[in-house]
Amino acid sequence: MSKGIPTREEDYSAWYNEIVKRAGLAENSPIRGCMIIKPYGYAIWEKMQKALDDMFKATGHENAYFPLFVPKSFLEKEEEHAEGFAKECAVVTHYRLKANPDGKGLVIDEDSELEEPLIIRPTSETVIWNAYKNWVQSWRDLPILINQWANVVRWEMRTRLFLRTAEFLWQEGHTAHATELEAIEETERMLGVYSTFAEEWMAMPVIQGLKTASERFAGAVETYCIEALMQDGKALQSGTSHFLGQNFAKVFDVKFVNQENEQTYAWATSWGLSTRMIGALIMAHSDDKGLVLPPKLAPIQVVIVPIYRDEADLPKIAEKVAPIISELNSKGISVKFDDDDKYKPGWKFAEYELKGVPVRLGIGMRDLENGTIEVARRDELTKETLPMEGIAEYISGLLDKIQQNLYDRALKFREENTFSVDTWEDFKERVEKGGFISAHWDGTDETEEAIKNETKATIRCIPLNSIEEVGECVYSGKPSAKRVVFAKAY
Amino acid sequence: MSKGIPTREEDYSAWYNEIVKRAGLAENSPIRGCMIIKPYGYAIWEKMQKALDDMFKATGHENAYFPLFVPKSFLEKEEEHAEGFAKECAVVTHYRLKANPDGKGLVIDEDSELEEPLIIRPTSETVIWNAYKNWVQSWRDLPILINQWANVVRWEMRTRLFLRTAEFLWQEGHTAHATELEAIEETERMLGVYSTFAEEWMAMPVIQGLKTASERFAGAVETYCIEALMQDGKALQSGTSHFLGQNFAKVFDVKFVNQENEQTYAWATSWGLSTRMIGALIMAHSDDKGLVLPPKLAPIQVVIVPIYRDEADLPKIAEKVAPIISELNSKGISVKFDDDDKYKPGWKFAEYELKGVPVRLGIGMRDLENGTIEVARRDELTKETLPMEGIAEYISGLLDKIQQNLYDRALKFREENTFSVDTWEDFKERVEKGGFISAHWDGTDETEEAIKNETKATIRCIPLNSIEEVGECVYSGKPSAKRVVFAKAY
Repeated sequence: MSKGIPTREEDYSAWYNEIVKRAGLAENSPIRGCMIIKPYGYAIWEKMQKALDDMFKATGHENAYFPLFVPKSFLEKEEEHAEGFAKECAVVTHYRLKANPDGKGLVIDEDSELEEPLIIRPTSETVIWNAYKNWVQSWRDLPILINQWANVVRWEMRTRLFLRTAEFLWQEGHTAHATELEAIEETERMLGVYSTFAEEWMAMPVIQGLKTASERFAGAVETYCIEALMQDGKALQSGTSHFLGQNFAKVFDVKFVNQENEQTYAWATSWGLSTRMIGALIMAHSDDKGLVLPPKLAPIQVVIVPIYRDEADLPKIAEKVAPIISELNSKGISVKFDDDDKYKPGWKFAEYELKGVPVRLGIGMRDLENGTIEVARRDELTKETLPMEGIAEYISGLLDKIQQNLYDRALKFREENTFSVDTWEDFKERVEKGGFISAHWDGTDETEEAIKNETKATIRCIPLNSIEEVGECVYSGKPSAKRVVFAKAY
Repeated sequence: MSKGIPTREEDYSAWYNEIVKRAGLAENSPIRGCMIIKPYGYAIWEKMQKALDDMFKATGHENAYFPLFVPKSFLEKEEEHAEGFAKECAVVTHYRLKANPDGKGLVIDEDSELEEPLIIRPTSETVIWNAYKNWVQSWRDLPILINQWANVVRWEMRTRLFLRTAEFLWQEGHTAHATELEAIEETERMLGVYSTFAEEWMAMPVIQGLKTASERFAGAVETYCIEALMQDGKALQSGTSHFLGQNFAKVFDVKFVNQENEQTYAWATSWGLSTRMIGALIMAHSDDKGLVLPPKLAPIQVVIVPIYRDEADLPKIAEKVAPIISELNSKGISVKFDDDDKYKPGWKFAEYELKGVPVRLGIGMRDLENGTIEVARRDELTKETLPMEGIAEYISGLLDKIQQNLYDRALKFREENTFSVDTWEDFKERVEKGGFISAHWDGTDETEEAIKNETKATIRCIPLNSIEEVGECVYSGKPSAKRVVFAKAY
């Protein structure tokens, strides 16, 4: 490494950017707000995709693919939806370039103007519900349980790698149901899937809740979300699941004959989770030495670094670790044996620390003599020398332990940074220091807006598990029936 | 089914469209030339992706993701490349819509015009080589072996589901190498991967060859391809691998210091295979009853249809087949037990025939008494009643047999429809009947063009395994050193 990474304490934002860059996760492209996801970052996304895709399929969903382009007239149909996305649309207006008649290069061929502009999908409700119109006639055709893995574009003015980019990758589920209840159950089921993914795969505890009206997805009746707390005390919305009511069915005319032989509109949900989660993953666990990855999402779970001076010793080490590698592989553990002689062991140690590989094994000539191996944990930065005998079994257990430790650590951090606040003075003071604030709110848009303007804190969610509790709004003093969660957010 | 599918004999093109539609593979969207890939079609694509992705990784490649947008100035840089793609570019010119000041709906906000138009990627050489500029300094940074799974857009005027669509899904490999030889080896290696995929997974024999200069990828030094023969006697290009020389390295300034300490440009390859292959798969094997899928790419490999009158009998059948299903699953075979009581067995039989499920098992009350089960093969449309004992083992072998049978059948068809032709009269007559024509060609663009104009046949490829053979061009009579393959093509 050429120089040190800024610490989180010194400059959290610079720390984040350096981790993304040095661990080889992503970089900015010359196209405004669009990132390049580099192989190591993409490998994390592949792990995330696999975990989610398995859960989607286990809950009865199938994948499909719908067009990238949304005709302007589609976007216009659902009024709130249109308003929500109009300001950030990439618009295709022409379909041909031609040689520049006045000189070099290419120019837009004005004869190729489209009759109707096409929007690059910012989300696919409109295109998909327009298709569902032809797919649904009877209750027998329902439910439709479809997911799509795709790229979407929202022309954001201020972008940050993974956290907010003009183009991003995501999955978007779009389901149609015969009854309101079924659709609400689906919305909640998929929030549960996201929550399981966040906690069991990402090792990141989340609060499940509802968004307030002002923070709802454009066109939704209700938006459910999971919210996580980052190490700088800011919240990050980590997946949303929307109950869309019959809004899209009505504007796209998706009607069916129900079991009572009546024509009725279908009920909709949509739910999405994006490459933003890679940003969350980085911020949830990493430290001043680099990335820290939970074993379940680590592209390389175990790295083995041979330590030798004499080149002739390498084959001896390789021979000794070969059975360990195959035993680990047979347990489904991904292992890299780094025998690249372009770099020294010390350089490699730093590199894998930076890349957040959960377990590093070091083995030198003395280890060969003693039948030992050095085991280093990335999460706690501890090392121990252990007998080689039974090491694969040990590591398998260690990976589980690391996964759990990261979750426990993040949960402890969240608990230590969640505050129950009852006065406006305390609120203002607390909000400056970061963390989740649990406080009473009078339920009005005006109060929510006023709090946001004065403190930059937003209502992250109305927790699903919140207890009915008589109280007074922390801002207006008006009556409130339950606490909501405030925080400054990404 | 409401009515019969047109036979291949009657109307090959209508037959193809009906298969795509009725098997639930894809449909046209209201967006010109863009298709909707429905769940069953997408499930085939997922199987294809998995097979290819495993082979890419086994040959040392990693996945990454680059922006959807190509700045116009990037496209202009490589002259041939620009010329090749300019005529079919979807162009983004604005990034915002606003409420229509003159009435309802949304209009483009003219204040949001981009300084430089962005093209939706028709392919990503330019964006990727612009990034490689910063990734490559020394020979130690090479090779770069990257693949991307993505959507691309080429504004085609005449489109057909899977075969030619404005937006399609594909993978595009982009590699950078230190030497010309290494890059050529890579180009050939990936052609080999495509060939293996076509023959071993798709059960579709292919000819490996080189494109002529006029059919080369825009910007390539050499284009390798695999060509397959469809049942109507037309050829289908099924994957291409390009040796790009130093063309892109030069225009994007990708230089490195080699082991001799000299600055030199990197060598490039690119290779792609798309959802077009689903079209090829359909046309290679399907029959007048519907889709026929090779087991290795079939989303459902075995379907089990229970046959009963009395509802109380269903649980008895379910109980009996449960261990068969788990035994099949443990062999990695995907099984669907269709106990949906909305449809009768006859309807289901026709439905799975249409969907090309390789093996169908039927089991009724008499089978329970006799300990038998009916096994139907989709490829040969044959049925046999077998003892239930050992059936999983039998089916596992049968699936391999079907995979092989489809390949053998397709190979026999190709052999019967490949003709060695030596006179222009024979050529013209033969070309009308379809098939591959092996003939001498004088190697000039003029002759190639003249043959195309007179017969619509193009040179599909110069086969890699063609034997040096002195001959005379079938059109011009000029000397020729080897035969090339002509056909009408998709």
